[in-house]
Amino acid sequence: LESKLPTLGTTIFTTMSALAQKVGAINLSQGFPDFSGPEYLQQRLAYHVQQGANQYAPMSGIPALREAISKKINRCYNSHVDPETEITVTAGATEALFSVITALVRAGDEVICFEPSYDSYAPAVELAGGTMKHVRLTPPDFSPNWSEFSALITDKTRLVILNTPHNPTASVWQKKDFEALWQAIADKPILVLSDEVYEHICFEQAGHYSLLQHPELRARGIAVSSFGKTYHMTGWKVGYCVAPPALTTEIRKIHQYLTFSVHTPSQLAIADMLNQVPEHDQELPSFYQQRRDFFINALQSSRFTLLPCQGTYFLLLDYSAISTMNDVDFCIYLTEKIGVAAIPLSVFCKETFPHHLIRVCFAKEEATLRAAAEKLCQL
Amino acid sequence: LESKLPTLGTTIFTTMSALAQKVGAINLSQGFPDFSGPEYLQQRLAYHVQQGANQYAPMSGIPALREAISKKINRCYNSHVDPETEITVTAGATEALFSVITALVRAGDEVICFEPSYDSYAPAVELAGGTMKHVRLTPPDFSPNWSEFSALITDKTRLVILNTPHNPTASVWQKKDFEALWQAIADKPILVLSDEVYEHICFEQAGHYSLLQHPELRARGIAVSSFGKTYHMTGWKVGYCVAPPALTTEIRKIHQYLTFSVHTPSQLAIADMLNQVPEHDQELPSFYQQRRDFFINALQSSRFTLLPCQGTYFLLLDYSAISTMNDVDFCIYLTEKIGVAAIPLSVFCKETFPHHLIRVCFAKEEATLRAAAEKLCQL
Ligand SMILES: CSCCC(=O)C(=O)O
Ligand SMILES: CSCCC(=O)C(=O)O
Repeated sequence: LESKLPTLGTTIFTTMSALAQKVGAINLSQGFPDFSGPEYLQQRLAYHVQQGANQYAPMSGIPALREAISKKINRCYNSHVDPETEITVTAGATEALFSVITALVRAGDEVICFEPSYDSYAPAVELAGGTMKHVRLTPPDFSPNWSEFSALITDKTRLVILNTPHNPTASVWQKKDFEALWQAIADKPILVLSDEVYEHICFEQAGHYSLLQHPELRARGIAVSSFGKTYHMTGWKVGYCVAPPALTTEIRKIHQYLTFSVHTPSQLAIADMLNQVPEHDQELPSFYQQRRDFFINALQSSRFTLLPCQGTYFLLLDYSAISTMNDVDFCIYLTEKIGVAAIPLSVFCKETFPHHLIRVCFAKEEATLRAAAEKLCQL
Repeated sequence: LESKLPTLGTTIFTTMSALAQKVGAINLSQGFPDFSGPEYLQQRLAYHVQQGANQYAPMSGIPALREAISKKINRCYNSHVDPETEITVTAGATEALFSVITALVRAGDEVICFEPSYDSYAPAVELAGGTMKHVRLTPPDFSPNWSEFSALITDKTRLVILNTPHNPTASVWQKKDFEALWQAIADKPILVLSDEVYEHICFEQAGHYSLLQHPELRARGIAVSSFGKTYHMTGWKVGYCVAPPALTTEIRKIHQYLTFSVHTPSQLAIADMLNQVPEHDQELPSFYQQRRDFFINALQSSRFTLLPCQGTYFLLLDYSAISTMNDVDFCIYLTEKIGVAAIPLSVFCKETFPHHLIRVCFAKEEATLRAAAEKLCQL
């Protein structure tokens, strides 16, 4: 059997979570909270199941949820989005990303992406017959070099994929970054996919800047988000994408044959949550900043160098002072011998990443973070 | 914007359900029950949510669910399936079908399928760069012509897609059909995808014959099923596929970037259901046969000719005695003027389907079926 993706293995998240479980390590690798989302959200799920909302949702998402998403976007970004023709509810942001890429990237197209980058973009582009080109982001600030970016643009460039707040570097784009992107592509027929799944986990004073706030990019862009992240329910697998009507038509053609529709009672529960507890997402930055600062504080006496964390629930640790191992070996060592699982940054890069950086997830109870920090401080 | 799937519109199910809702027609078009699944299943979902099982499930599915599926397959088909390396839990059978086709069909490959066929196969094959070839099934028995099938095989044939119990024709394959398939492909490197989502809704004395019962086909085949159908919860979107380890490896490479994982608490609830109420699927044939027979009886005085229904929750009606309209126009007329929505059979065919057939779904309460039958008897 010849593989269509011969070089592809199992995602690092599956691998590291499995290893963590096997050796009983504290799992700070795969990004997920070790606590659940709001009680109210849980109750509403049970309610809608019992009310009999258990059959197929409409293909594009339950109208009440799409309405509530549109209101939220208006509230947060002062941007108008039509729930009927511009919002599609998906089986998590992962499905949104896959549907968007499959709908828009044609064989021979080129896609530009910033590296390190989340690991699901490249396989989707490859399956669509496209080619990935990368702009390298470098520590400590990870901000893009725009002349490097412009040099990658050709007649074949179809799509740019960006991600802010950025996984895995925890950097956050400002309005000026979107302006620079726009300057570079304004006169070219290039589309933009903005992965904003951590939109509400942003510690910058200025807050998250969304593609939806930039009128010109909005007109040829797609924004993707995730309720799993916002509501601490990564296992519910509900996300969405926002795109102009012509793009949404194409995205839905893929979505309808990929999954068709999304868990009905979860959609209804999330709609209730958005409508009844709209303040939740405003409280999220301080909720996670507290955890971040607790963890940073607990790592004070360690020999790791901590990198700036402007958003997401990930923190980068530089272990140069501790070991000369490569990051994959170091993460295995850390998991098996020290009892803390983390993600090596090189797995988010196609080319060599010559740094000694690992990613840890701080979406955890204080007790978990304290125990992990104690182990990390032994090194 | 140039479309990658220019000829593709919205699925017929979305279109007809929307029209039914708009005009207030009884919706016998899209296949879903108008009742919910077992109370126990609902309670277990609420239980697992409250217990905090709300984060990512393992990529291939929750081990307890894969174990329970393996036991069920052993019980029903006396076939051994390894939960670790052969079962993958997916976001409904739709995602399983898409993942399997994307993993296995390469650009230039040919895929043979029996027509009329479910509408999600062809777009997935097309996106993978494959070409669909069809063996026409004809009423009233819809059994395949195997010499026609063999004539379609070339050096490029990669995959055969079959579906039993068959949507939309309600026909059911016997062991002899699988034997005939095996005879035709035994000495060729052709894989087989068996869509068995209605496996437990089979009214034949002999019951459902699964690909998993045929050792040779099993060794190069994939079977897909759906808990949405078995548990009357089409909105929960949990399905699975079974394939030999080498194929499963490739299927999971796609699944992990398509959705990554499936609704965690629903998986746990379904595992409980499989373990605690294993008799459910044995009771399903009589549960649906009762509805089928009630509906057939209620249509006795109509001018429709009813076709045999051996499985699924669909019934075919021939309206030749009523109208000479084509089936799409007739379904629109039926929905708008008579108040009953149905699916025209021609939408399941790429080439002209020269029959006057429509599909109605009888997974409905008796009151719904009675009201629909009364309207249909007016014609
Ligand atoms: C889909 S599992 C990976 C979760 C995640 O986003 C991460 O850890 O980066
Ligand atoms: C995914 S919506 C279609 C449901 C179905 O299987 C059918 O109506 O045939």
